[in-house]
Amino acid sequence: MFQTSFPVRYYEADPMGVVHHSEYLRYFELARNLWLKEVGYTYDHSLEDNIVFPVVDLECHYKHSARFGQVLTATVEVSEFDMVTATFLQKVIDPQGRVCAEGKVRIAFLNTKLGRPVRCPARLVEKVESLIK
Amino acid sequence: MFQTSFPVRYYEADPMGVVHHSEYLRYFELARNLWLKEVGYTYDHSLEDNIVFPVVDLECHYKHSARFGQVLTATVEVSEFDMVTATFLQKVIDPQGRVCAEGKVRIAFLNTKLGRPVRCPARLVEKVESLIK
Amino acid sequence: MFQTSFPVRYYEADPMGVVHHSEYLRYFELARNLWLKEVGYTYDHSLEDNIVFPVVDLECHYKHSARFGQVLTATVEVSEFDMVTATFLQKVIDPQGRVCAEGKVRIAFLNTKLGRPVRCPARLVEKVESLIK
Amino acid sequence: MFQTSFPVRYYEADPMGVVHHSEYLRYFELARNLWLKEVGYTYDHSLEDNIVFPVVDLECHYKHSARFGQVLTATVEVSEFDMVTATFLQKVIDPQGRVCAEGKVRIAFLNTKLGRPVRCPARLVEKVESLIK
Repeated sequence: MFQTSFPVRYYEADPMGVVHHSEYLRYFELARNLWLKEVGYTYDHSLEDNIVFPVVDLECHYKHSARFGQVLTATVEVSEFDMVTATFLQKVIDPQGRVCAEGKVRIAFLNTKLGRPVRCPARLVEKVESLIK
Repeated sequence: MFQTSFPVRYYEADPMGVVHHSEYLRYFELARNLWLKEVGYTYDHSLEDNIVFPVVDLECHYKHSARFGQVLTATVEVSEFDMVTATFLQKVIDPQGRVCAEGKVRIAFLNTKLGRPVRCPARLVEKVESLIK
Repeated sequence: MFQTSFPVRYYEADPMGVVHHSEYLRYFELARNLWLKEVGYTYDHSLEDNIVFPVVDLECHYKHSARFGQVLTATVEVSEFDMVTATFLQKVIDPQGRVCAEGKVRIAFLNTKLGRPVRCPARLVEKVESLIK
Repeated sequence: MFQTSFPVRYYEADPMGVVHHSEYLRYFELARNLWLKEVGYTYDHSLEDNIVFPVVDLECHYKHSARFGQVLTATVEVSEFDMVTATFLQKVIDPQGRVCAEGKVRIAFLNTKLGRPVRCPARLVEKVESLIK
């Protein structure tokens, strides 16, 4: 499991005073991308490989409201990987350790030159497998 | 079914050149809120009723990329309503009629004075039921 | 002068209950882009011309808070145009006709193939001049 | 001068592949708010004082494009403070030390109970003065 922490930004909270539901999907993506960087598959690698990671399916369950002023933690682990898609289990956790949101995000591997889905790039396969829970 | 159309905004598209996956959730919310307004339950009514509509669960399936330059249509209908939550079926459709994203959003009715979920306000019940598919 | 109207979106309002100051810059951009489309210089034209419009300078003055529930109007006119940059005067106006924000945005013409600023594409010059106040 | 660093998020970059101009204003605000927290004036204090900090004027000059994959640094210092408004000088700097954007943001002190601008809360005055360049 990989995790990253960050303060809630003011514009991310809505008139209810809590983080807008769409922002959790963005925190999830942040965690996925920082994990990729951490394991050594950088954005430059993805440009060399002509690979982007479109989200194909997601679900998210909201349990507890996060607020401006808090530092949140987003976590990511892999639940399924079949070479053409990977499914990530993701959480956003507040400073008291409560799960604010819990989700599942399935991404594909899209070759931007070919304009179609392809298999996970070879040098990324091992890294994705290393994150399997 | 209610629907609303709007142009893609430049900042909503990402370096892949397509609308970021989180934006579809925002288009869904826009459609829900404009529907509410259209049927006569305005934001002022929700303030009088001390009611907000937190999202409790959502899922979204991405079928086709939307792009800057397009005018999109977001649709909303109700699939389930049990007085304490309502589930909306939502789509975002491109100018060629292709479904770009399809989702399900369940919301609760939260009383901001009591700080807890309550039943759907009386004057809103009939309107929600009118949207059931 | 060109203008466009749109409802405030829920996520655009912050915990003060008002539209976040960064959103007005996005409304300004929306008005500029819809104006471009209206005068017949579409996004496809800009792709053919390899032209993007980076903002180089902006200022914005906030006069009155806009709120969720309102339909706002964003306006755009050109105050200066010297072939390599164009300066737009922009306003966001609320339903009571009050100016919420007033700004000035200067953009350049960047050729994405050459990777450097260029003169305004010929077929756009006349259109920009037509918007001069 | 206070500074904070953070990775560019994918959704913050636009189809040009660079950070959207509106995001820099959000980075500026992040730096102001983290500075406030660091000097001990927390969001809870502002709630006790019924104080919010609306932006009244801003300007921003864009010098260099920031990109997804970079870790940026946002800086904040105070240039003017007259008890009813404070003006912050702000920069966003890329990993090579280049200034991507440079701006000036003037905020007021708004009492949310009174619904009008007030003087800077006593316990914040000294802190603001400590940030004067």
